[in-house]
Formats: sequence, structure tokens, C-alpha cells
Amino acid sequence: MAASARAAGPDAIGIGLLGLGNVGSAVAETLLAGPSGPAETAGVPLELRGALVRDPSKQRPVALPDGVLTTDPAHILEDEGVRVVVELMGGENPAFDYISRALRSGKHVVTANKEVLSKRGGELLKLAAQQDVSLAYEASVGGGIPIIGPLSDDLLANGIVSVRAIINGTTNYILTRMAEDGVDFQEALAEAQSLGYAEADPTADVDGFDALYKIAILARLAFRTEVPIDAVYREGIRRVQAKDFRYARDMGYTIKLLAVARREQGGLLARVHPAMVPSRVPMASVNGVLNAVEVEGDLVGPLWLQGRGAGPRPTASAVMGNVIRTVREMNAGGGPAPARPVTNGLPLLSMDEHVSQYFMRLEVRDQAGVLAGISGILGDMEISIASVIQMDVDLERGVADLVIMTHPAREANMQSAVDRIRGLDVVVSLANLLRVESYETVG
Amino acid sequence: MAASARAAGPDAIGIGLLGLGNVGSAVAETLLAGPSGPAETAGVPLELRGALVRDPSKQRPVALPDGVLTTDPAHILEDEGVRVVVELMGGENPAFDYISRALRSGKHVVTANKEVLSKRGGELLKLAAQQDVSLAYEASVGGGIPIIGPLSDDLLANGIVSVRAIINGTTNYILTRMAEDGVDFQEALAEAQSLGYAEADPTADVDGFDALYKIAILARLAFRTEVPIDAVYREGIRRVQAKDFRYARDMGYTIKLLAVARREQGGLLARVHPAMVPSRVPMASVNGVLNAVEVEGDLVGPLWLQGRGAGPRPTASAVMGNVIRTVREMNAGGGPAPARPVTNGLPLLSMDEHVSQYFMRLEVRDQAGVLAGISGILGDMEISIASVIQMDVDLERGVADLVIMTHPAREANMQSAVDRIRGLDVVVSLANLLRVESYETVG
Repeated sequence: MAASARAAGPDAIGIGLLGLGNVGSAVAETLLAGPSGPAETAGVPLELRGALVRDPSKQRPVALPDGVLTTDPAHILEDEGVRVVVELMGGENPAFDYISRALRSGKHVVTANKEVLSKRGGELLKLAAQQDVSLAYEASVGGGIPIIGPLSDDLLANGIVSVRAIINGTTNYILTRMAEDGVDFQEALAEAQSLGYAEADPTADVDGFDALYKIAILARLAFRTEVPIDAVYREGIRRVQAKDFRYARDMGYTIKLLAVARREQGGLLARVHPAMVPSRVPMASVNGVLNAVEVEGDLVGPLWLQGRGAGPRPTASAVMGNVIRTVREMNAGGGPAPARPVTNGLPLLSMDEHVSQYFMRLEVRDQAGVLAGISGILGDMEISIASVIQMDVDLERGVADLVIMTHPAREANMQSAVDRIRGLDVVVSLANLLRVESYETVG
Repeated sequence: MAASARAAGPDAIGIGLLGLGNVGSAVAETLLAGPSGPAETAGVPLELRGALVRDPSKQRPVALPDGVLTTDPAHILEDEGVRVVVELMGGENPAFDYISRALRSGKHVVTANKEVLSKRGGELLKLAAQQDVSLAYEASVGGGIPIIGPLSDDLLANGIVSVRAIINGTTNYILTRMAEDGVDFQEALAEAQSLGYAEADPTADVDGFDALYKIAILARLAFRTEVPIDAVYREGIRRVQAKDFRYARDMGYTIKLLAVARREQGGLLARVHPAMVPSRVPMASVNGVLNAVEVEGDLVGPLWLQGRGAGPRPTASAVMGNVIRTVREMNAGGGPAPARPVTNGLPLLSMDEHVSQYFMRLEVRDQAGVLAGISGILGDMEISIASVIQMDVDLERGVADLVIMTHPAREANMQSAVDRIRGLDVVVSLANLLRVESYETVG
């Protein structure tokens, strides 16, 4: 095993990398920086003993010592000299299998993999605890922003009230371009793709899956409650149009894709959706590819963390922070401090229970009596109207934009109302329905 | 010893409190909340075995069990059942003595004491390392904001470039009132005192000592370099006037008391002073008693942390976070991960080396030739002028306000220029000199 890797010094700790893309290369670079590099803070030399890749002949930004590259996971997972496995492949499989095997052989694991952590994290964390090894995952959420660390340690004395985040850089870049320059969604998406911020298939970002994985991970940790990904409400940003930003701005708001997990009504509600955010709160000023996480604790009050949510170097910062801490704990002679067990103390609420103000944009026939029909339906559902504004009129089509802002209402009531409003003859389309994020207690 | 304290359960960890003011009471409250309280996350029961006070008969917001209050420090420091000492007395003495004694008897220490940590932290941290116990001090800086934790763990792989903070809530409250409502310093200070944000003797806050202690603590940790407090440039906010805010706003700035430690010119420069901050950067929007810390690391880039920087509950959040982590590390069987040693790798730079733009407000005779004299002196010192604006004119006194903004210049040159400008006949007074904080790489 690892016969061709460099000989370890007496005290060197062996590290194995699964995956050597941009993040893996940045991590390898810090590991190879030698005794004066970041790894020096671990207190002992770190030795990169293996790096799993698909294609060993591919050009990479980092030059690895001979014998480190391998296409065989066993080269790392069965090498007894590897004490810490760093998983940077992404995806549920085969990452789940590799991480499980590493934990079962008593190796510590550091991962940046949000998908496997959200879908299978419960099992993996339990396995790590049984094996008395650590499974660290700071890099899976928020890139270089320390958020798993603070929730795991610094904020332990708090009962967490809410975690609210802008946690997907791609969609935040797109929404920022739409807000600032009035471009439409397709144009902003194409631009994000050309800049490398969005994938060729943008579904994971644009439809909210990436943000969903991350909020499920944060919710498990903050509320000690397992949040299956299908218990999280998810809505992407494809329906948001340039004109929504114009109307939002006129009313003192901007539009952000928020990921929220909040203790309310005796339960826990987790949701990802585009939301109207008051322009005056800090969340409204998180622009471009930045990420931000707002945590409210019962002792600490509101806390705000912001930084680069992606990119090889910020992610390597989080990964290597975990690696160094793991090694320091090994050196200190004890096992890792056990993660707080998931107690599932909070029942998961359905989105139907959510209460918020709603911004509704309708295309209606430009004729009398339109508002009577709509407000009648809203009234039936006990939803009261805060304001109605008739915006752009398309004289040729005889169609007008109508923007309605409601007072706080239950989601279930609003959805019933929406179904009935869509059926009205005078309504050409219900173009968008956006929830208004409440900042009454936080911000 | 501790004969009258409650009997410990088989696994309970004994805690001793030094100081029972507002923060101590909030900490005691969490300790006494029982198995369902915050301390539950420690994994074992925590037992409050002693609380040192001056006056046991004083009314307190928390009811303690019989036998816990004591006026004798030995009751805590020599009680073998006390494993973790929480020091909340503040000040250098006798806190230094008590903390040293606790560490020497093998007790872990958690402290919120910025003064002793900045002045004697080097000695205390060395002693803790020798004794293989932990000395945790998250609450000494930034109240409930996790900053010591991230710098100690999550960001370990980074070379830190700068730490820049609004870290004194009292002065930030005063400056915010001056900026937003045009009140003068004395009025804002009196208001801060009546609200309990400022002490009767406001020197520690208003003259920048509190911010100095905190930035010295952050600099030691971030740069692994001991920063004696007299190596930190310190200037308070007494000279800032309401009209400075008016002029600053006209030029696109606000004024904040910044505490900065930055790696530059091969060394480390630490400074506390009021600064002109561009209105567009997040630091300009940190208002009231909020604190914010901006860290720039070579991997993570700029990182932003904001929250409540003071108050019993946010401070208790930080203290109890440290207590719980300490207990969890004890349970894990090893010692604490040793703190990174201070290597003193960076020479400390004097403020003379600082380079910035300057905002200079002068009262000058309202007559011709004034500018020639001033600009001649600046030219001699190789300081070029970016803009000159004549502001308010006091016709009765024949005096005008002149506001000069320079291009970047060395502090030493500017101070020489200032001495000579003060000597000019046409200059009635050099009313204020403010440094403009540069946001070229961060923000």
C-alpha cells in the first residue's frame, strides 16, 4: 500500500485526497507548502500520501510528488498511513461509500460535500461517533465562511431561533445583475455561465437544490433535528423577472434567494425560495457571488457572517481549517469532542403553515371590476390587502400589471386563493408570487 | 473546602465563578438551568460550586443555592472540585493573580477580561500551555461574536492580512448619534451614560483604551505576534465634532472609531483612531452598539462578522461556549489542543510608517493667500492635495472652515506638516485631522 509515496517522517500525519479538481488542487498546494506553510500550524508535518483522480494524465495547476496520484480508491482508503481522508468529489455516490469505508477503518474525514452531508449526513455522523473519529464538513456550506464551527462550538450555549442565509453564489450573482442592471434572467444566467459561476446545466443552483442541501445541513446542526431534503420547501428563481425588481424597488425591497430554517409555532420550518427583502436590512446588500448567514440565538441575539461562499481558495481555507483542527485534536491525545447528538426535538412544519406577507404580480384585463373579483377571493380566504398598485399597461393587448401586497397570511390560504384567482376571466396570468421576508425581530 | 456546596453527581464538572455582576449572573443562570438548559450540551452536568463576590448581601437577578456565594477566592481557587474557573471580574489585578493560581492548580480558565488578556495574556497563555490546561477568552473581544474561535480554529490555514474592527459599542453609539442626528459629542456622551452604555468615567471607551486592549488580543492571535499595548497607536473620539460628520458626508464618508491590525511593509501596524470610512462599505453601516470585525486571510479573502458586542446575554453566550467546549475536550480524554505559539514573526511598525489619505479641517482667517501657505508646507513634505473645500464662514469672527483632503501620505510627514501649519498666522486652529481608511483590497 502506498509503496511509492514519500516516506513519512517519524511524526508525520498521512492525508489522502479524494478528488483533485480546483478545490483539491488548492488543498494539495497548502499541504505541499512545507513546514512554513499553513499546515505548519497543525504542529506536526502533514504528508499527502494519495490523491484519487479519474485521469492521471490530465494537466493540473499543482505538481504532485511521484506516486501520489491514483485511480484506485483503495490506495487511500486501505492505506494505514492515511489518518485523515479529505473528500472533495461531490455528489452522493460513490462519496457515501468512500466516506463510510474511511470512517469504518478509523480514519478521520473532512468533506466539502453538501449533497452527501444533507442526504446521508445523519448516518455518517452516527458512524463517525461510533468509531470515535471526526467527520468535519465546514466547507460544505458557505465556502470559507466559518459557520459549522461557530454552530458546533462557539454558539453551543444558545437555543438557536433561526438561520437565514444567502448561500448560493450563482443565483445571487444572477439576481444581483437583474436588480442592478435590469437584465432578464436568461441573459444573467448566460453571463454567469460564461464567467464560470454557473454550470452548463444550471438546475442545481437555479432551482434551489444547492441552497436546499446547505440549509438542511445547517438546520440539522443548529436545531439538532434531522431535516430530510424533501421536508424543505424549495422554489428556484426562474420565475423572477426584471420587472419584479422594478416593482420591488418602488416598494422599498429587493429580491434574494433565501434559505431559511426557523423555529416557530413549536416546530421547525425550512424553506428555500426567492423572497422580497427590505432594502434597509444587511441581507439586501449581499451582492454578487458573496454568501451571508444570519444566525439568531437566544443569548447572542442576531449574528451576521459574510464572505466568499465558493471558489478554490476560500473552500480550501475551510477544508484545511478542519484538517488542522483534526490533527491538533489527534495530537492532544484524546478523541474528537463528540458531535452533539441529533435529538429530533422539533417537529417539521409544512410550508402550508408559513405566515408572511405576499407580493403578487398579475396580468389582468384593463377593465373595470377586476379588483372586486380578486379582493373578493382574498377576503374569502381571510387575506387582507395592504396595497394595490396598477403598474405598466400594455394598451395594444389591453392588459395591465397589477401588483398586490397583502398583510401577513397563511401559505395554505394564499395557495387556495391563488388557484381561484387564476380561474378568473379577467386574470390573464398570475405572473409571480413572492413571499416578503419578515425582519421584525432580526436584522 | 466547598463543604457547603451541593454534592456533585458522579460525573458533574465543578465550575467556579469569579465575579457575579450582570454577565456573571447571566452565566450563573445558564449553569443553573439544569439538564435541559444550555449546559446540557456539555454532555455532563455542570455544577456551580462557588461564586466570588464582594458583598454577599447584595440583591442579584439570579437566586443561587446556599453556600455558593463566597468572599474568599480560595474557596474557589483551592477547591479541588472546581475544574473550570470563569473569571468575570475585569481589570488587571487581582485577576492576573487569580487566573495564574487557577492555571497552576491545573484548572481550566475561561475569561471575559480584555485588560488582563492584552497586558498579561502572553504570560498566562504560556502558563496554561505548561500546565496542559486551556485558557479560553472568546468573551474578551466582541461580546457574543465568535472571533477568537474562528481565528483559533477555522481560519488556521490562512495567513492573516488584516483585522479591522468596530469593537467598542459605546463610542460607536456616540458616533452614530452624532452622524445621524447632528448632536455634539458631549450630548451624545451624556445620552450614552444615561442609557448605561457609557461609564460615569468614560475614559476607557472614549479615549480608545477598550478598543486598544481588544485589538492587541486579536493581533497576538491572528499574527502570532505579541503586541504590547504601548506599541498600539491610540487616539480617541473627543476631537470629533458634529461638523466633521457634515463635511464627511458631503464627501461620501462617515466617521468610525476603528481598531486595526494589519500586515504591511514586512511588519505589523496596530492602531485605534477615528477614521473616515467610505459610506458604501459595510463598516459604514455598523451603527449603534453593534460590533463588527473584518478579517482578511490569504485563502479566505475578506470575511465579515457582526453582532452584539456587549451586554450580559451575548457575553454569556461567548463565556458558556468556551465552558462547554472546555468540558467537551475534558470528556474526550485528551488535553486541550495547544494554542499556536506566539512566534513574534513580525516586527511592530510605528504609526510614523502609516500611509493614508488625510482629512484636515482648519479654521483659517477669511483672507487671500491662506491656501498658498498651507499648500506650500504640504508640498515641502511631499504631500499632495486631492481637494480643498471652503466650508462654513463665520463672518463676525472673519474665520472660515477649510477642509483639505490629501492623497496618500506618510504619517510622519503629515505630523511634521501639521506642526508647521499650526504655526501659520493665517491658521486659527487645526481643528481635526482624520485618517481616511483605505478599502482598496477589502470590503
